[in-house]
Amino acid sequence: MALFSKPIKTLDDLFVHTLQDIYYAEQQIIKNLPTMVEKASNPQLKAAFEHHLGETRTQVKRLEQIFELHGQKAKAVTCPAIDGILTEAKEVISDCGDKDVCDAAMLSAAQAVEHYEISRYGTLIAFAHQLRRDDCATLLAQTLAEEKAADGKLTSIAENRVNRMAA
Amino acid sequence: MALFSKPIKTLDDLFVHTLQDIYYAEQQIIKNLPTMVEKASNPQLKAAFEHHLGETRTQVKRLEQIFELHGQKAKAVTCPAIDGILTEAKEVISDCGDKDVCDAAMLSAAQAVEHYEISRYGTLIAFAHQLRRDDCATLLAQTLAEEKAADGKLTSIAENRVNRMAA
Repeated sequence: MALFSKPIKTLDDLFVHTLQDIYYAEQQIIKNLPTMVEKASNPQLKAAFEHHLGETRTQVKRLEQIFELHGQKAKAVTCPAIDGILTEAKEVISDCGDKDVCDAAMLSAAQAVEHYEISRYGTLIAFAHQLRRDDCATLLAQTLAEEKAADGKLTSIAENRVNRMAA
Repeated sequence: MALFSKPIKTLDDLFVHTLQDIYYAEQQIIKNLPTMVEKASNPQLKAAFEHHLGETRTQVKRLEQIFELHGQKAKAVTCPAIDGILTEAKEVISDCGDKDVCDAAMLSAAQAVEHYEISRYGTLIAFAHQLRRDDCATLLAQTLAEEKAADGKLTSIAENRVNRMAA
C-alpha cells in the first residue's frame, strides 16, 4: 500500500492505489538492482539479477499499459514496505565481510523483494477479477508468473551453490 | 535482515541475524494484530486474524527454542522491512472510508506480511540445512507451514467474500 493522497472509498480506488504502490516499488527495484549485479560474486546470481533487471523494465511498461486500460494516468506513490525491504538489502551488502556470505545475504534480500511482489500482484489480480477487469488481470498474471519464476530460480541458486559456498 | 550490530563474517552470523530479524518481526506482528482483529468487519476475517495472533505467539516461543538449540540468547534486531510493511497496513486502515473496502485492504496488507515471513523462514531453513542444524530446520519448517496455511486461508477469504463485498 502507500502514502495515500485521497481516501479510499471503493475497491476501484484500492485497485488504483495498489497499482501506484507497485509502480513505485518496481521503479525502486530498477534503481537498486544494478548495485546487486555489481556486488554479486557468483556468476549464476549475477546473471539472475541482470536478467531480472530487464524483466522488471518490461513489468514497468506492462503496468503503464494497465493504467491506460483502466483509464488512469500512470502514477507512483511512496511505498514504505519496499523502501524498508530495500533499506535492509543495502545494510546487508555493507555489513557482510565475506563475498560468499554477501551473495547469500543478497539472495535472501532479493527473495524478500520477490515475495513482496508476489503478494501485491496476487492481490491486484483478485481485485481486477472482482472489478471485471479481466484484461488487466491477464497482464498482471504475466508479471506474477515472472516473479514466481524469479523466486524459484533464486531458491535453486541458493540450494545448489551460494549457501554451500558461504557455509 | 536488520540493523546489524556487528559485521557478518560467516553463514552462521547471517543465520543468527536473520533469526533476530524475524524475532523482531513476529513481536511487531503481535503488537499490531489486535487492531486488525478489532477493525475487521467480516467475521471470517476477524476469526482468521484472531487465530493467527495465537499462532504467532507460538511461533515466538518456537524461535526462542531455536536460539537455545543454537546456543544463542534470544535477541531482536530492528527490521526495517516489517516496519515498512506495517506502516503501510496502518495507513490503509486509517485511509479507508468504507468497512468492506477496509477489510479488502487489511487482507492485502496481511498477505504482504505473510509473504515476508514465508520468504524469511524459507531462507532460514536453507541456511539451517547448510549449517547442519536439521533440528532448527525442523522447527522452522513447522512455522513456514503455518505461514503458508495462513496465507492460503486469507486468499480463500478474499476470493469468496471480502473482495466481492467491497466491489
